[in-house]
Amino acid sequence: MADARDEIDALIGQFSRLPGLGPRSARRMVLHLLQRRDQALRPLVMALDRVAQTAQPCTRCGNIATAPICDICADPKRATGEICVVEDVADLWAMERGQVFTGRYHVLGGTLSALDAVGPDDLHIPQLLERIVSEGIREVILALGATVDGQTTAHYIAESVEQTGVILSALAQGVPVGGELDFLDDGTIGAALRSRRAF
Amino acid sequence: MADARDEIDALIGQFSRLPGLGPRSARRMVLHLLQRRDQALRPLVMALDRVAQTAQPCTRCGNIATAPICDICADPKRATGEICVVEDVADLWAMERGQVFTGRYHVLGGTLSALDAVGPDDLHIPQLLERIVSEGIREVILALGATVDGQTTAHYIAESVEQTGVILSALAQGVPVGGELDFLDDGTIGAALRSRRAF
Repeated sequence: MADARDEIDALIGQFSRLPGLGPRSARRMVLHLLQRRDQALRPLVMALDRVAQTAQPCTRCGNIATAPICDICADPKRATGEICVVEDVADLWAMERGQVFTGRYHVLGGTLSALDAVGPDDLHIPQLLERIVSEGIREVILALGATVDGQTTAHYIAESVEQTGVILSALAQGVPVGGELDFLDDGTIGAALRSRRAF
Repeated sequence: MADARDEIDALIGQFSRLPGLGPRSARRMVLHLLQRRDQALRPLVMALDRVAQTAQPCTRCGNIATAPICDICADPKRATGEICVVEDVADLWAMERGQVFTGRYHVLGGTLSALDAVGPDDLHIPQLLERIVSEGIREVILALGATVDGQTTAHYIAESVEQTGVILSALAQGVPVGGELDFLDDGTIGAALRSRRAF
C-alpha cells in the first residue's frame, strides 16, 4: 500500500513543475483535490483530458486550436491583410482581450536569445515570410516585449521581411492607461515623451 | 470551433478554484500545459486519473488511502495505544514529516467553528470515542492548531473523552527550532516562558 503515497507524491511532483508553484503549494493543491474527489478532482481530470485530446497548435499561426486551423485563421472576417507577430499564445490572448486588433496573428514560439541558445531557426520566422506572400499581407505589426530579447527579435524580423515590401509597425510605448507618472520607470517616461502627440 | 476556447476557459476555471490560485495564475498554468502536451499535460492527466481512481479516505482514521484502511492503520507496529488527533490530512502529513510520532492518527475533518456553522456532528468525534474503546487507546494527543477554533475543538474533545479515562495531552507551545526571539509574537514568547524547563 506504499504506492498510495508514491502516486500522490508523483502527482505533487507534476504540479510543482507548473509555473508559479513550488512543492508546498503543489502539496496543498493535491490535498485539496484529494479531499474533494467528486467536486474537484474528477471534473479537473475530465476537463484536462478533453483539452489534451482536442487542443493542438494551429498549423498556420501557432495559436491553440481544436482543429488544424484555429478559429481566428478560419474566420474570413479576419483576413484584413494585417498580421500581428507575438511571442507566445499568452500574448495572443492578451491582444484578443484588448478587443482592438481585427487581423490575424503569428506566434513565434519565443524570442531570439543568445543566453538560451534560441536562434532564428527555432522560431517560426520562415513561416511568417511565407504567410506574408501567400496571404497577401500589407502590414506586419510587431507586438513583442520591450525587453532586450524582444527588441533583438523585432530587429531580426524587420531585416527578414524588408525584401517583401510589407509595412512594418510596432506597438506604441508610453504611459499605461490608469498609470501614474510617479510609479513609472524612467525608460517608459522617456519613451512616452519622445512619442508625444498633439493634444 | 468556438468550443475550443470554451473548453480551455472551463479548464482555467477549474484551476482557478484551487487554493492559492486566481484566474491569472490559472491561465498561465493552463497555457504552460497546452504548450507542452506530451511532456506535461498528458502525464498530469494520467497521474491525476490514477489518484482519482485509487485514493479514498481511510474508513478508520480519515487519512488518504488506496484501500479501505490506510497504511498507517494497517501497520501493526503503529498500534502503540496512542492516537494523535489532527484537523486534516495536511496536518497528518506534517506530523509524519516530523518522524517522531509512532502511533496512529485520527483526522477530524475540520475544527468546530461558530462562524462556519461546524458543529460536533460535522467532525469525526463520535468515531474517535469508538476507537478509544475498540483499539484500547491509552493516550490521545491533541495536535490542533493554536487558533481560537482549534482550541475550542480541543476543549470539546477533552470533555467528550473524559469519561473514557484516557490520558489526554497536547503539543507543546514554545520557540520553534531555529526561531529567533526577536521575530516571535508575544503570545509564543509568553507560552514558552510559562512552559520553561530545567536546563
